[in-house]
Amino acid sequence: MANSKFEYVRHFELSNTTYLLPNTYIIIRIDGRSFHRFTTLHSFTKPNDSRALSLMNAAAVAVFHDLGGEVISIAYGVSDEFSFILRKECNLFERREAKLVSTIVSIFTAYYISLWSTYFPSQPLQRPLPTFDGRAVCYPTIENVRDYLSWRQADCHINNLYNTTFWALILKGGMTPQEAEKELMGTLAKDKNEILWSRFGVNYNNEEEMFKKGSVVYRNYGAVPESSADDKSDDKEMDSEIKEKGVVELTSMVSPAEAQKGKSRSQQKREAKKLAKAEVVIEHVDIIKDAFWEKRPWILHWTLGRQNEYAGTEQ
Amino acid sequence: MANSKFEYVRHFELSNTTYLLPNTYIIIRIDGRSFHRFTTLHSFTKPNDSRALSLMNAAAVAVFHDLGGEVISIAYGVSDEFSFILRKECNLFERREAKLVSTIVSIFTAYYISLWSTYFPSQPLQRPLPTFDGRAVCYPTIENVRDYLSWRQADCHINNLYNTTFWALILKGGMTPQEAEKELMGTLAKDKNEILWSRFGVNYNNEEEMFKKGSVVYRNYGAVPESSADDKSDDKEMDSEIKEKGVVELTSMVSPAEAQKGKSRSQQKREAKKLAKAEVVIEHVDIIKDAFWEKRPWILHWTLGRQNEYAGTEQ
Amino acid sequence: MANSKFEYVRHFELSNTTYLLPNTYIIIRIDGRSFHRFTTLHSFTKPNDSRALSLMNAAAVAVFHDLGGEVISIAYGVSDEFSFILRKECNLFERREAKLVSTIVSIFTAYYISLWSTYFPSQPLQRPLPTFDGRAVCYPTIENVRDYLSWRQADCHINNLYNTTFWALILKGGMTPQEAEKELMGTLAKDKNEILWSRFGVNYNNEEEMFKKGSVVYRNYGAVPESSADDKSDDKEMDSEIKEKGVVELTSMVSPAEAQKGKSRSQQKREAKKLAKAEVVIEHVDIIKDAFWEKRPWILHWTLGRQNEYAGTEQ
Amino acid sequence: MANSKFEYVRHFELSNTTYLLPNTYIIIRIDGRSFHRFTTLHSFTKPNDSRALSLMNAAAVAVFHDLGGEVISIAYGVSDEFSFILRKECNLFERREAKLVSTIVSIFTAYYISLWSTYFPSQPLQRPLPTFDGRAVCYPTIENVRDYLSWRQADCHINNLYNTTFWALILKGGMTPQEAEKELMGTLAKDKNEILWSRFGVNYNNEEEMFKKGSVVYRNYGAVPESSADDKSDDKEMDSEIKEKGVVELTSMVSPAEAQKGKSRSQQKREAKKLAKAEVVIEHVDIIKDAFWEKRPWILHWTLGRQNEYAGTEQ
Repeated sequence: MANSKFEYVRHFELSNTTYLLPNTYIIIRIDGRSFHRFTTLHSFTKPNDSRALSLMNAAAVAVFHDLGGEVISIAYGVSDEFSFILRKECNLFERREAKLVSTIVSIFTAYYISLWSTYFPSQPLQRPLPTFDGRAVCYPTIENVRDYLSWRQADCHINNLYNTTFWALILKGGMTPQEAEKELMGTLAKDKNEILWSRFGVNYNNEEEMFKKGSVVYRNYGAVPESSADDKSDDKEMDSEIKEKGVVELTSMVSPAEAQKGKSRSQQKREAKKLAKAEVVIEHVDIIKDAFWEKRPWILHWTLGRQNEYAGTEQ
Repeated sequence: MANSKFEYVRHFELSNTTYLLPNTYIIIRIDGRSFHRFTTLHSFTKPNDSRALSLMNAAAVAVFHDLGGEVISIAYGVSDEFSFILRKECNLFERREAKLVSTIVSIFTAYYISLWSTYFPSQPLQRPLPTFDGRAVCYPTIENVRDYLSWRQADCHINNLYNTTFWALILKGGMTPQEAEKELMGTLAKDKNEILWSRFGVNYNNEEEMFKKGSVVYRNYGAVPESSADDKSDDKEMDSEIKEKGVVELTSMVSPAEAQKGKSRSQQKREAKKLAKAEVVIEHVDIIKDAFWEKRPWILHWTLGRQNEYAGTEQ
Repeated sequence: MANSKFEYVRHFELSNTTYLLPNTYIIIRIDGRSFHRFTTLHSFTKPNDSRALSLMNAAAVAVFHDLGGEVISIAYGVSDEFSFILRKECNLFERREAKLVSTIVSIFTAYYISLWSTYFPSQPLQRPLPTFDGRAVCYPTIENVRDYLSWRQADCHINNLYNTTFWALILKGGMTPQEAEKELMGTLAKDKNEILWSRFGVNYNNEEEMFKKGSVVYRNYGAVPESSADDKSDDKEMDSEIKEKGVVELTSMVSPAEAQKGKSRSQQKREAKKLAKAEVVIEHVDIIKDAFWEKRPWILHWTLGRQNEYAGTEQ
Repeated sequence: MANSKFEYVRHFELSNTTYLLPNTYIIIRIDGRSFHRFTTLHSFTKPNDSRALSLMNAAAVAVFHDLGGEVISIAYGVSDEFSFILRKECNLFERREAKLVSTIVSIFTAYYISLWSTYFPSQPLQRPLPTFDGRAVCYPTIENVRDYLSWRQADCHINNLYNTTFWALILKGGMTPQEAEKELMGTLAKDKNEILWSRFGVNYNNEEEMFKKGSVVYRNYGAVPESSADDKSDDKEMDSEIKEKGVVELTSMVSPAEAQKGKSRSQQKREAKKLAKAEVVIEHVDIIKDAFWEKRPWILHWTLGRQNEYAGTEQ
């Protein structure tokens, strides 16, 4: 075949294929490209544009739906970035880095573009179109993942307090950006709170939670009634979806001793189905303190054959 | 600062950052995800849908425009895949693999979604939206790159001849897909040509070039008049664009001895500008034989400070 | 400087530097190269040569001593291979893979060659000299590490039972290697035990533990009296050794919350010193069952600032 | 089998296996670990110890012999480092980085230790034993490789001129190391030459070539008479050696069109044999200028099926 003498070029792919370490949490963070220019061009409200943040959140929810129930544990978004935490057990695309990153970036981009007119009905999308880049990093423990999320949420707080004060000085205080920047140089959090309150009558605590806390997206497994997972009616469809999404073959990734802790294969399937049915929710809450995680233990602790213990814990 | 105790998580990024080998051609290939389902859902014409291929080409052209003049040498598309060949000297994102792949996938996706209604005016886009994954592979020599492109174009020919015959058997011959598959098992190219001609009066050679050859996209540098690069009017804008796009700092990637072969810094700039002005063209031609490359030497041989030699070679 | 125009070549190193994922156990396994030929050339006793295994163990102990107290947790050797488990917190060479692997292989090789005449006094070393290759793999959890070690020890048992029977058939039973191989085809463990016992009066259980279990090497931290670590006399020397060996900068690798669990900096130092003083021991014992690990909790659970809890647990 | 439930740990190896990019030159550089302490402990002559450099060279020659005729093109050594340039076509260990680096480091270490007493007959080797680490970097073009070697040789010159002057000031001028360092601060090459000549009567040009140029090691293919390769007597042995050493399967690495340029399979074999017979030589010559390479074209240009053109070019 004429093709065969060229096919040797496929051997080069081996050198550029990265398989992410098994049994670790994969965090894929996407960032808007040149969003400074993009937000100016499209007249985003400063310091925060609720429509734009809601569009980001809608695109993130679409990633959950497109990838199915067992790939992503939780996602966290702030400004023009979103972090997706994949389960330790995830074996989608055999954990090939380029496929994982590019797929999530592509889904996110597709829905961002497609949903634009829903969130900005009177604002047509101009070129260059908004796009995103992405990267993947592995974290071995739950502590590392929580610290990663705490890092992003602490960053959200720091940046939002700064931006809120900065734009108040400009929009309400009549300063130029340069003057505002100078004014804030060296100030502490309490100084910024004081500026907002004393000069502009703004109590930072009353700002929108979405601005102060960012957006937390996850499947509300705890709210799904147990019986729902027993419903046999859609077994086949679910089974095929679960399979199609590249759900982990446990034997290849996790200590079997650990994976089999007390759960039968059919129990595992039922729980996976229940998870797939759980609604994807968006919340603007503290994820640095323990409370969030203690109430929703399935998010990080969930392992096929173990997540059942956590059902119904959410009020 | 509250953030600092969490920031240690950034150290993990080092383990998952791949810098692609300098002084090699980077080929980024993107592929449609689950396009079988997608094309069925959107009633694509079989075996080829001209609207769909033109939409792919338009998205590829948008990648050229978004990334500026000196990043991509040439791109080749067939079916639901597109390969972008980046210049050896490309230093965009310091050649970080995840950023390069995800950015190109994101741009491609954004324009595919955005331009959909132009190419399918009466066919609304349904969910799940079309998305793409991508991967990067490095090739050290021009021979390797040409063999890669020959591999893809030979593949295009083989698949298109098969698909053309397969769908003729179904659409014109009234066979089921299973019957058509069986009929074609073990047939050679000449057998398929014979089936097309004797049973359906189809001369394969007369099929559309876009179907038989795929789509070649590149900047037509050879057609830009020399004087145009001397035009000083838009110097500033160009300069900043060239800088912004992450154009290679030659000293860091290529043997300086080689890079400086006879060209002054200002000459190099002028040539880069000329390249940036060259129109992006789409052709459906043979790229396996030498003729295509001999007529357009700037595509692969182009190096900052050398491309001038090739100006005006294209008729 | 004449050198500067060539120095750009250093940029290529970035593409080939792998930093192993922080907070994971690094296992470096070394293997003898072409040891079949080497053992024949040097008339090793079959199926096991005690001198050769003792030499392997001595080289492994030298790796512990050369790298200092806090790099390696435990090592396991069988036949011509040795696996070194590095602590999760290890930051030696910033966890650069090539440096870690090549350094351990080089130390092991140097001592193997240098100690040869001690273990084979009447057998001069012939060319080609014995050499080893190595590789590094990361494991995120203690369970993964224990399963890795269990895999190697189970392999040791399987191979040793086979080899013991195979060589009994040849050396005592007068078979050719081909006949022995045929005889053993399809046999289970109990069949081999039966062959050994009924034909050659050999009770496999009475074989040397080193042959059946392999060799376990670790620092006997539990046996160091607590007071020894308080000895101030050699503080300076120890301090510099601890620093020099590239001991982890905790802040860069482990969740600080976790690392600081109740230990002061000076406590941590004292414990590190105690560990450095612990004798390196070689044992031939079961490491698949829990007992070994429960008695020596410091081996895998040890973390700077935590290991003190385990002192004195060993009887 | 008891082993099977642990074997899943092998899947983790995939994440830590790096295959170096095909069709590029692999340079493996090894460096002495803590050689400052080692050379002091063993009373090396300052600034250069001929015995020590000769021992390094002997170990490098052993690497050539151990790996066979077609793996390494050339090696360059200076001080306690040695760089080995592997052929573009090299497919040893499928180009797995860890195996390539660790194997070369292990061979080098083994011979360094084993040959120590030959070069230091009255100086017993003390602990800690001398060891080496290594790293691999790929370079795509001959220009890059030559620039790499020029970088190392220019470095050799710069360091040697400095060290020669530094130690003259101490050993002949009676300065302390601190005084000598201060004296040399900010001096240019000509200043150092002047210090050597005017104060100590030393003409730097008359220093040993090995000190000024370092050591170049390669197979003197050009000096092998053509007929020698036709000698059929040792065909079998050679054949098996060539195979055993993992010589490239051309089809998998290089454009076949390029590889087959005019040479038959049997011609290629004959040439490979001739190369394997070529003596490994050590020279202390300039490798920055073109002359060295023009006279020995087989070193870098050699490709299976092409090297014959270069036979007999060396005088």
